[in-house]
Amino acid sequence: MADLFWPGDERAALAFDPGSFLETMVEVEDVWLNVLVEAGVAPAGARADLDGLVSGADLERVAGAAEASGNPVVPLLSLLRERLAPTNAEAATWLHRGLTSQDVLDTAVVLCGRATTALVLSHLDRSVSALERLARRHRDDVMAGRTLTQHAVPITFGLKAAHWLQGLLDARDDLRALRFPVQVGGAAGTLAATVELAGDVDAAQFLVAETARILHLDNASPWHTTRTPLTRYADALVHATDAMGHLANDVLLLARPEIAELAEPAVDGRGGSSTMPQKANPVLSVLIRRAAFAAPGLNAQLHLAAAATVDERPDGSWHTEWSALAALSRHTVTAASQTAELLEGLHVDTARMAALVKQHGSAFTAEQRSIAELLDREATSDPRHYLGAAGEIIDEVLSRTDDHDQEEQ
Amino acid sequence: MADLFWPGDERAALAFDPGSFLETMVEVEDVWLNVLVEAGVAPAGARADLDGLVSGADLERVAGAAEASGNPVVPLLSLLRERLAPTNAEAATWLHRGLTSQDVLDTAVVLCGRATTALVLSHLDRSVSALERLARRHRDDVMAGRTLTQHAVPITFGLKAAHWLQGLLDARDDLRALRFPVQVGGAAGTLAATVELAGDVDAAQFLVAETARILHLDNASPWHTTRTPLTRYADALVHATDAMGHLANDVLLLARPEIAELAEPAVDGRGGSSTMPQKANPVLSVLIRRAAFAAPGLNAQLHLAAAATVDERPDGSWHTEWSALAALSRHTVTAASQTAELLEGLHVDTARMAALVKQHGSAFTAEQRSIAELLDREATSDPRHYLGAAGEIIDEVLSRTDDHDQEEQ
Amino acid sequence: MADLFWPGDERAALAFDPGSFLETMVEVEDVWLNVLVEAGVAPAGARADLDGLVSGADLERVAGAAEASGNPVVPLLSLLRERLAPTNAEAATWLHRGLTSQDVLDTAVVLCGRATTALVLSHLDRSVSALERLARRHRDDVMAGRTLTQHAVPITFGLKAAHWLQGLLDARDDLRALRFPVQVGGAAGTLAATVELAGDVDAAQFLVAETARILHLDNASPWHTTRTPLTRYADALVHATDAMGHLANDVLLLARPEIAELAEPAVDGRGGSSTMPQKANPVLSVLIRRAAFAAPGLNAQLHLAAAATVDERPDGSWHTEWSALAALSRHTVTAASQTAELLEGLHVDTARMAALVKQHGSAFTAEQRSIAELLDREATSDPRHYLGAAGEIIDEVLSRTDDHDQEEQ
Amino acid sequence: MADLFWPGDERAALAFDPGSFLETMVEVEDVWLNVLVEAGVAPAGARADLDGLVSGADLERVAGAAEASGNPVVPLLSLLRERLAPTNAEAATWLHRGLTSQDVLDTAVVLCGRATTALVLSHLDRSVSALERLARRHRDDVMAGRTLTQHAVPITFGLKAAHWLQGLLDARDDLRALRFPVQVGGAAGTLAATVELAGDVDAAQFLVAETARILHLDNASPWHTTRTPLTRYADALVHATDAMGHLANDVLLLARPEIAELAEPAVDGRGGSSTMPQKANPVLSVLIRRAAFAAPGLNAQLHLAAAATVDERPDGSWHTEWSALAALSRHTVTAASQTAELLEGLHVDTARMAALVKQHGSAFTAEQRSIAELLDREATSDPRHYLGAAGEIIDEVLSRTDDHDQEEQ
Repeated sequence: MADLFWPGDERAALAFDPGSFLETMVEVEDVWLNVLVEAGVAPAGARADLDGLVSGADLERVAGAAEASGNPVVPLLSLLRERLAPTNAEAATWLHRGLTSQDVLDTAVVLCGRATTALVLSHLDRSVSALERLARRHRDDVMAGRTLTQHAVPITFGLKAAHWLQGLLDARDDLRALRFPVQVGGAAGTLAATVELAGDVDAAQFLVAETARILHLDNASPWHTTRTPLTRYADALVHATDAMGHLANDVLLLARPEIAELAEPAVDGRGGSSTMPQKANPVLSVLIRRAAFAAPGLNAQLHLAAAATVDERPDGSWHTEWSALAALSRHTVTAASQTAELLEGLHVDTARMAALVKQHGSAFTAEQRSIAELLDREATSDPRHYLGAAGEIIDEVLSRTDDHDQEEQ
Repeated sequence: MADLFWPGDERAALAFDPGSFLETMVEVEDVWLNVLVEAGVAPAGARADLDGLVSGADLERVAGAAEASGNPVVPLLSLLRERLAPTNAEAATWLHRGLTSQDVLDTAVVLCGRATTALVLSHLDRSVSALERLARRHRDDVMAGRTLTQHAVPITFGLKAAHWLQGLLDARDDLRALRFPVQVGGAAGTLAATVELAGDVDAAQFLVAETARILHLDNASPWHTTRTPLTRYADALVHATDAMGHLANDVLLLARPEIAELAEPAVDGRGGSSTMPQKANPVLSVLIRRAAFAAPGLNAQLHLAAAATVDERPDGSWHTEWSALAALSRHTVTAASQTAELLEGLHVDTARMAALVKQHGSAFTAEQRSIAELLDREATSDPRHYLGAAGEIIDEVLSRTDDHDQEEQ
Repeated sequence: MADLFWPGDERAALAFDPGSFLETMVEVEDVWLNVLVEAGVAPAGARADLDGLVSGADLERVAGAAEASGNPVVPLLSLLRERLAPTNAEAATWLHRGLTSQDVLDTAVVLCGRATTALVLSHLDRSVSALERLARRHRDDVMAGRTLTQHAVPITFGLKAAHWLQGLLDARDDLRALRFPVQVGGAAGTLAATVELAGDVDAAQFLVAETARILHLDNASPWHTTRTPLTRYADALVHATDAMGHLANDVLLLARPEIAELAEPAVDGRGGSSTMPQKANPVLSVLIRRAAFAAPGLNAQLHLAAAATVDERPDGSWHTEWSALAALSRHTVTAASQTAELLEGLHVDTARMAALVKQHGSAFTAEQRSIAELLDREATSDPRHYLGAAGEIIDEVLSRTDDHDQEEQ
Repeated sequence: MADLFWPGDERAALAFDPGSFLETMVEVEDVWLNVLVEAGVAPAGARADLDGLVSGADLERVAGAAEASGNPVVPLLSLLRERLAPTNAEAATWLHRGLTSQDVLDTAVVLCGRATTALVLSHLDRSVSALERLARRHRDDVMAGRTLTQHAVPITFGLKAAHWLQGLLDARDDLRALRFPVQVGGAAGTLAATVELAGDVDAAQFLVAETARILHLDNASPWHTTRTPLTRYADALVHATDAMGHLANDVLLLARPEIAELAEPAVDGRGGSSTMPQKANPVLSVLIRRAAFAAPGLNAQLHLAAAATVDERPDGSWHTEWSALAALSRHTVTAASQTAELLEGLHVDTARMAALVKQHGSAFTAEQRSIAELLDREATSDPRHYLGAAGEIIDEVLSRTDDHDQEEQ
C-alpha cells in the first residue's frame, strides 16, 4: 500500500495490507467450509474453492460496507455468497456456518501476525549475523565509553556491538516463543452452532482442530475476551523496536561529524537533502528511530483494549485493535529490514575511535588511577590497558548465538 | 483509501489520505514557485502551473522512493522536475528554491490539519444542534441517575444530554481556537537561501508572508523544532474523541436490553451479525469508542516527538509524527461523523426511563429522606420531586451555544 | 507510604516504597562489600554489616541530595561512609569499589521487582483457586451471553469464570517465566574496576557470580543499555492488570441493579457513599479498573526508555524508569490483592441469571432456529439446550491449572 | 514527600503531596460548611474552623481507610466528625451536607492544580528571562546549524535560544489560559441535596457561587463527567515538558566533550559519579529529559479516563486520574525549576562554536554556493555571511515577550 507517511514501507509485502488481509479472511472461510464438507457435516456439493473469488479489486466495496456491521466480515460474506450462488448454491448456504465474524477476523489477524513475525525474524537473523561479525572483528578496537553523555572509561566497539546484539537476541527469543492459536468460538464462544451442525461436541471440536491443522495454527479454546495472543505478539514486536531504536541512537550519535566513528552504508542517492548538496543524512537510523517512538504507544493501545474487554465479545475494544496491530506490524517489519541493511553495511572507523581516546586519554584512566592509589600500584596512562572483561563479555553474548545455532542443528 | 481496519472511513474524503496529501504538497510547491516569480525573484519564464502535474497515479513511485531521503519531498521534486524540464526548464530550475523538505511537508500537514479541523467542526456542529434539541425536549424527563454503576438520585435525560453537550462545546472551543501557521525556514530555519535569492531579509520575509496569505495560513517564524502547532491540533482532536467516547459509553450502556432506555437510529442492514439473525448491534457507538481508545496514545506519540526534538531539524522525531497525525485525524473525522448521525437519530424511550425510576423508587429518594430527617421535614417518596437544579444546569449549558450563535451573527 | 491517591495501597508492604528501596540498596552494597572481603580482594578489616546503618529516618536526606548526582546512590554512599568511618575506616574505603551507581540501583530494582512478582503471584494463586471453584460450581448455570452489549446465545457462568481464569493463567505463566539478573558492570559495563581490584577477569567474574548467588539472582552480563529484564517484568505486570481489568468490567456490568447477576462481597462499611445512605458501590472492581487504565501507559514509558538508550549508560531514559516501575508495581500488587478478595467472596445469583434468560428466551435461540431450518430439524425453544461445548471448554481451561499443580508436585 | 525515585523533588512543596492534599480537602469542607452557615442554611452553631483539625499525622489513617469507599473523602469525613462532635455537634451534623465525595476531591484537585500552575509559571518566567538574555547576547554568535545530526547551514546561538524560548512561550500561554472551576454537583450532578437544604434553586446556586468566590475559583456547572478542566491542565503541563525536553536534548548534545559548545552551570558536588573522579554529568538536563519522557503517557492516562466516563459519576476512570495528576504535576514542577536553574547558569562557549564552524567551513556554505551558481554570483566562503534572517527571527520571538510585558503593566 503506497503511503507517503511510511518511507521504506515498500521493503515488505505486508500481511496486514488491506488487500492481503482480505485474501487471508477468504482463506479462513475457505478452510472452514471445506473442513465442514470433508467431515461430512456439510454436503459434498458445498465443496468450493474460494481462492480468488474476492480480490483487491473488491476492497473498496468491502471496506465501504464494513461500517454497517462494524467489521469487514459481514460484507465479505455477502460478496462471497453473491458470487458463489449462481454456480454453487450449496456452498453459498454453508459458507461461514458455525463461525462468528470475530472468529474469521481474529484467525486472519493471527495468520498475518505469524507472517509478520516470520518476516521480522528473517531480518533479525541478518542483523544478528552482522553483529556477530562486528563483535568478533572489533573485539579489541578501543573506543570511548560514554555515560550520561560524558567520557567514562574505555570500551571496545566489539563490546558495543555485543550490547546491541544482546537486545536483538532477547527480542528474537520473544518472537520465537510466540504461539499462534486459531479462533473458533461461534457467537458467544460456546461453539453452539458448530455443535448443532456437527451433532456433538467431539465432532465440533474435531472441526476446530482440523482448521487449526490446515492453517498451521495452534488448536485452542476460544479467546474472544482473552487477548493474550495479540498482546504477547505486540510485546514481542516492541522488544524488537526497542532494541533497534537503541542501536539507531548510537549510530546517529557516533555518525555526527564531530565524532565520526561510524557511518551508515553509502548508497547512491540516499541521504540527500532537498536543498543542501553536501548532505548525507543517516536515513536508515532516522527511520528506525521513528518506529521505536511509535511502537510502545501502539502496544499500549492493544493492552488497553485487552483490559477493556467485557461481555462475551466486546463493544469497541476489539475494533480498536486492528489499526494498532497493522501500524505496529508495519513499523516493525520496515525497521527490521532497515536495521539489517544498516548493520550489514555499517562503516566503522577504528582509527578515529582510537584517535579520540588518545586525545582525551587522561579522562579515560581517572578511575584506574584512583584504584591504583588505593592499591598502591602504578597507574596506567594508556586507556587500552583498562578494558576489564570487555572481551569475555563479548564472548558471553556471542555464546547465546552459538548455543542457538547448535540447538537448531 | 479503502482500508478494512477503518470501518466508516468512507464517510470522509480525508486530507491525510496519501493521494490528497501528495496534491497538497504540490500545491505548496506551486504557490512558492509562483510567489518567487510574482516578486521578481525568479524569472517570469519560471512561472508554472503545477496543479495536476503529479497525481495519485504517481503515489507508488513517490512513496517508494521516499526512503532514500527519509521523506517524500525529494522524490516528489525529482518527478516534478522531470515533468517540467521538457517544456519549462526554468520552472524546473527554480522549483523549491529557498525551501527545505520540512517546509513543504510541514506546510502540507498544516493545510490538511486545517481541512480536517473544518470537517470535524462541521460534524460537531450537527452534534451540538442535535444535543440542544435533546436537552430541550427532555428537560423534564426523569430517569435514573447512576454513580459508580449503582442507582443514585434521579436526573433528567435533558441533563445527561447537556453534559454530553458540555464536552462537545469544550472540544469545539479548542478546535476553533487552533491557528494554522505556514512553515518556511529553509535548511536550518534561518531563511538563508531565501534571503540569498531575494536579496535582503525584508524581501525574503515578504515571500513567506505572501505564501501564507495565498494559502490562508498564519504568517509565522519557522517552527521546525517547536511543534506546538501540531501538538495543539492533536490535543484538540483528542478533546473531541474524549467527549464523543463519553457519550458513546452512555449510549452503549443505556441501549443494553436490560436497561433499554436508548437505542441507536435504526438503519436497514446496520448492526447485523454474521450468525445471529436477531441482533441489532449499536455499531455507531462501538466505532466511536474505538476512536476514543486510540486517540490519547496517538496524541502522546506527537508530544513525545515534540519533546525529542534536537538540532535545527531532528533525527526521527519529525518522521514519527506523520503516521500518528494521519491516524488520529482519520479516527476523529470518522467518529465525529458517526456521532452526528447517532445523535440526530437517537431513540429515547422516556416511558422506559420513567418505569425504571418507578420500579426502583425508594433508592432514588434515600438521600432526600436523610435530609428531610435532618430538617425535620416531610420526605418525598416521588423521585420526580427531587431533581434539584437539573433544569437550570441544562439552561446554563445551552446558553453556551446561544452565546455562540449570537456571536456569529 | 500513606498516599491518598492510592486507595487500597496498604494491602501490601511494597518493595518499591522509598524506605524499603533504600534498605534494598544498602543490602546490595553490603553483599558486594562482603564478597570483596570473602574473596580476599578487600582486606579482612573491611568486613562490615551495613544492615540498619541507614534507615527510613535518612530518607529525606538521601532523597534530597539525590538531585546533585541524578540518582540516590551517591548520597547513600556518603551517608554510609560517614557512619562507617569512625569505627571501620577500611569498610568506608572499600565500600562500592568496582560498582557504578547504576549497578546498585538496577540490582535493587530487580530485587524489588522479584519481591513484587512474588506478591502478585501469591494473590493470583488465590484468584486462580477461586475461579477454579467458580468454574466448577457454575459449570451448568445458564446465563445470558452478550456480545457488543446485546443478547447473543446462552452461556454458563462457569464458562465466563473460565475465560477470566484463562487471562489470569496467561499472566501467571508470564510472571513465573521472569528472570531476575544481577547488574554489575562498573562505570561503562566492562567490569574494568573490578578486574583491576581482583587481579584478573576470572576473579572479577567470580565476584559477580557470588553476588548473584547470595542475592538469589541470575548471574548475567551487564545490561546497562539492554533493558529487557525490566520491560519483560513490566509486560508481565500489564498482562496481569489486563486480565484483572477484564473481569472487573464484567463484575461492574453484571452488578448493575438492572442486571443484578453478580455482587461484590459485602463487607461492613465498604462501598458507602458520602451522601447517599442506600449506596453499596462495587469498590473493589472500581479500584481494579483504575489499575488497568494506568498500567499500559506506564509500561509504554518503560519501553520508550529502553528504546531511548544511548551510550554506555544513558542520559535520562534510565532516570525515567524509576517512577514508572514504582507506580506500575504498586498498581498491580494492590489490584491483585483486591481481585483475590473480590473473587473469593463474589456473590453469584444463579436464579437471577436463569430468570433473565427465560425472560428474553427467544433471542437466545434465534441462531439455533436458523440452523434447525437449514438442517430441517426441530428447533429448540429452550436456551438451556443450546450451550454447545461450554462444559468442555471449561474443562480445557481447568486442565491448565491441573497440569500445573501436577508439575509442581 | 521524600522519594528516592524523584531526584530534585525537594525543589517544590508540592500541592499534590499527600499531606498538602489532605489539608486542601479540609479547606474545601471548611469553606462549604461556613458558606452554609453564612447563608443561613445551616444554623449559626454549625460554624466551625476546620483548619488544623486534621493534619499530616492523620494521613496513614485516612489513606488506609480510603479503600472502603474507593476515595479518601469518606474516611476524612469520619475523622472530622469524630473530632468535631465532642465540642460542636452541629458542625459535625452539617459538615459536607449537599456535597458528594467527588465534589470535595475534584475541587481540591483543581486548587492543587492552580497552585502547581502558579509554581510552574514562576519557574517558566525565570526561564523566559534567561532565554531573552541569551537570545540578545548571542544574536550574532555563529555556530553550526545541524539537521538530521549533520552539519547544515550556519545559525547563531541566539537563534537556538529563541527557538527554545518559542516553545516555553507557547507553554506559558497555555498555562496562563487555564481556568479553574469549582466542582459542586452533589450525588448525581443535579445539586438536589443543596436545593433541598437551601430551599430553592437560586439559593442553592448562590452557595456554589460563594464557595467559588472564596476559593478564588471559577463558578461552574457540575463537570463530574466532563473532564475538560483536568485534561486541559494536563495538556498545558505537557506543553511545558515538551519545550523543556527539547532544550535539554540540545544542551546534552552540545555539552558532549567532542562538541563542548555548552556546559551546565558548575555547582560544587553536582554531576559527580560514584566511581569516576573526573566526571561532571549534566544532571539538570538529564532530569529534565526524564520528565519529558514521562509526561505524554501520563497525559494520555487522563484523556483515556475522560473518554471512559459513563453514568453520572464513573466507575474507575475517575479513580485513575489521581496518581496520574500527581505524578505529572510533580514531574513538571521539578523540571521547570531545574530548567530555570539550567538556563540562568548556562555556560556558552562562543569561541568553541566559532572554531567548529571554521573547521568544517565548506560544508556550511555548500547551499550558498549552489545558489550563487544559479544566480551567477560570487560564492562566499565565510559561513558568517550566510545567516539569512536569523537576527530578525530572534527579534520576532523576543517581541512575544515584550508584548506580554507591556500587557502586564
